Parts: sequence; C-alpha cells; structure tokens
Amino acid sequence: MRILGIDPGIAIVGFGVLDKQGSQLRPVQYGSIQTEAGLPVPLRLKQIFEAMQSLLETYRPDEMSVEKLFFNKNVTTAFTVGQARGVILLAAEMAGVPVYEYTPMQVKQAVTGYGGAEKKQIQEMTRLLLRLKEVPKPDDVADALGIAITHAQFRTFISISEGVQK
Amino acid sequence: MRILGIDPGIAIVGFGVLDKQGSQLRPVQYGSIQTEAGLPVPLRLKQIFEAMQSLLETYRPDEMSVEKLFFNKNVTTAFTVGQARGVILLAAEMAGVPVYEYTPMQVKQAVTGYGGAEKKQIQEMTRLLLRLKEVPKPDDVADALGIAITHAQFRTFISISEGVQK
Repeated sequence: MRILGIDPGIAIVGFGVLDKQGSQLRPVQYGSIQTEAGLPVPLRLKQIFEAMQSLLETYRPDEMSVEKLFFNKNVTTAFTVGQARGVILLAAEMAGVPVYEYTPMQVKQAVTGYGGAEKKQIQEMTRLLLRLKEVPKPDDVADALGIAITHAQFRTFISISEGVQK
Repeated sequence: MRILGIDPGIAIVGFGVLDKQGSQLRPVQYGSIQTEAGLPVPLRLKQIFEAMQSLLETYRPDEMSVEKLFFNKNVTTAFTVGQARGVILLAAEMAGVPVYEYTPMQVKQAVTGYGGAEKKQIQEMTRLLLRLKEVPKPDDVADALGIAITHAQFRTFISISEGVQK
C-alpha cells in the first residue's frame, strides 16, 4: 500500500511517499512544494493545487494523511495554513484518494512510541525507521514523512478491524 | 462591471452578485452554497469548489471580493473557514477572476460610512442600497452582499487611480 503524507503550508508544503509492505516501510519520494512570498495568495493556492495534482498522478497513493489540527498556533497562521490545506484536501478528493487525519499527539505516539516526544526525536526516529542517511530538510519534509509513518502504523490496526474508515 | 461578493464558510458560503453602472448598484443574484455537517470535509470542499465554478461560469463576474481576515474568532474556526476560503480563491484564480480583500472595518466604512457600525446596521444599509424588500437570510448572504458593495465603493476610487490593483 502506498501512503502520501502531507504537511500543509502556504510557503512550503512538505510531502512524503511511502510504500508499506507488511511491516516494512520504504520511502519512495519526498520533498516540498514551495511558493514565492511575493505572489498573490490565489495564485499560490493554484500552484499548490496543481503541484498536488501532479504528485497524486505521478505516485498514485492509495491513501493520504495530514495533521488534524493546529495547536499552539495563532489565528492568522491557522487561517493561512487552512487555505492551503483546503486546496490540498480538494486535490485528494478529486483524485479519489481517502484522507486520514492525525493529531500531533498521535504522530508522536506512532513514530516514537511516546506521546511526549520532542520534534528532534520524531525526526530522528523517522530517519531510522526509513533508513535514511540524514533527516530530510526542511522540517516540513521530515514532518510529512512522520505523518505518513503514523498512517502506516494506524493502518495496520485499521486493516485488522476490517477496513473501518476513520 | 459585475462583482461577486463571497462570505466563506464550510457549512454555508454566502454569495452576492451585483452590477455596478456608474454609481448605480443592481443586485443580480444572491444566495448560499450549503454543505451537510455529517459529510467528510474533503467532500464538502469539493462541493463548495464545484458550486463556485458553477457560479463563476453562470454569472461571469469581472471581479470577486472577500473579507480579509478573521478577528475575534478562535483558532479552530479560522482553520475550518480557511480551508473553505482556500478552494474559493482557487476557483476564482482558475476562472481568471481577480480577488480583492477587505477588512471588516472597511466593510463597515464602505456600507454605512461609519467604521463602528453594528452588524444589523450594515445589513439594513445593504438592504437600502440595493432596494431590497427584506434583509436577505441567512446572515452569510447579507454579509456577502455587503462585501460586494464594499468592493463597488472602493472600485470607484481604484478606477480613478488608473486601475492600480490592490
């Protein structure tokens, strides 16, 4: 099964594509979609939407995962990231790819086995689980891989419970 | 010139189409796009996106206006409305319709001439300016007409300053 993990943003969208075979996780591709700060927001949203369509078409993931919500962020950030997240979810829906959402706590738990883990620990554990030489940069890419791993872990459980969709 | 005013939301998107001829404003159509609370968010975003595409194609506005940002709202609301706003801006960009943004203060000032006006006063003034028998319901529709009027007022000024885009 192929999973696309996404860390949404207006300036940078991190993405990570993983193949899950049994308990094995194999990184297929990871990177970021970036938009220029000076451009109008509607244009940046279109660039993100089109890049997402291209990613979905190229890698044909079975499922997508994104972080559930914002915590400890201000209203302006939530609003801006929300706009980017909207066009990302739209691209998934139009490609027929189901979207699963996880809280930051679930990501920490799934990747490190510890709900109180720090960002650096999650990134290092992501690197180890995927047998990468270095932690991918920028943080958005590592975070996208973390959210993909999280879905892979939960997916095992979901499969056992006969494919009940979250 | 035809203006489409939009009040974004995930459950209700208010819209108002106005024609501006000289200093005259004529309401062409107004109403709301509504999505069901129980449906998955990606599907609701797709419904909003498709309804927006349909509105843009039917009424072919020259320009669109939306409220600029959230004030006095919580992070979760900003995030949810941001997602809907993202697909709305995307639809406008894909239709080649320029988007203009106004703060709530600008809306109050433009519609009532007074930056400290209350919601009811803005709605009543919207009704008078458009010569409607009643204030359109729900509030989202009246708000969308208010944001369209705001753009019509500013547009006069923008035209004078030789079409400088905000």
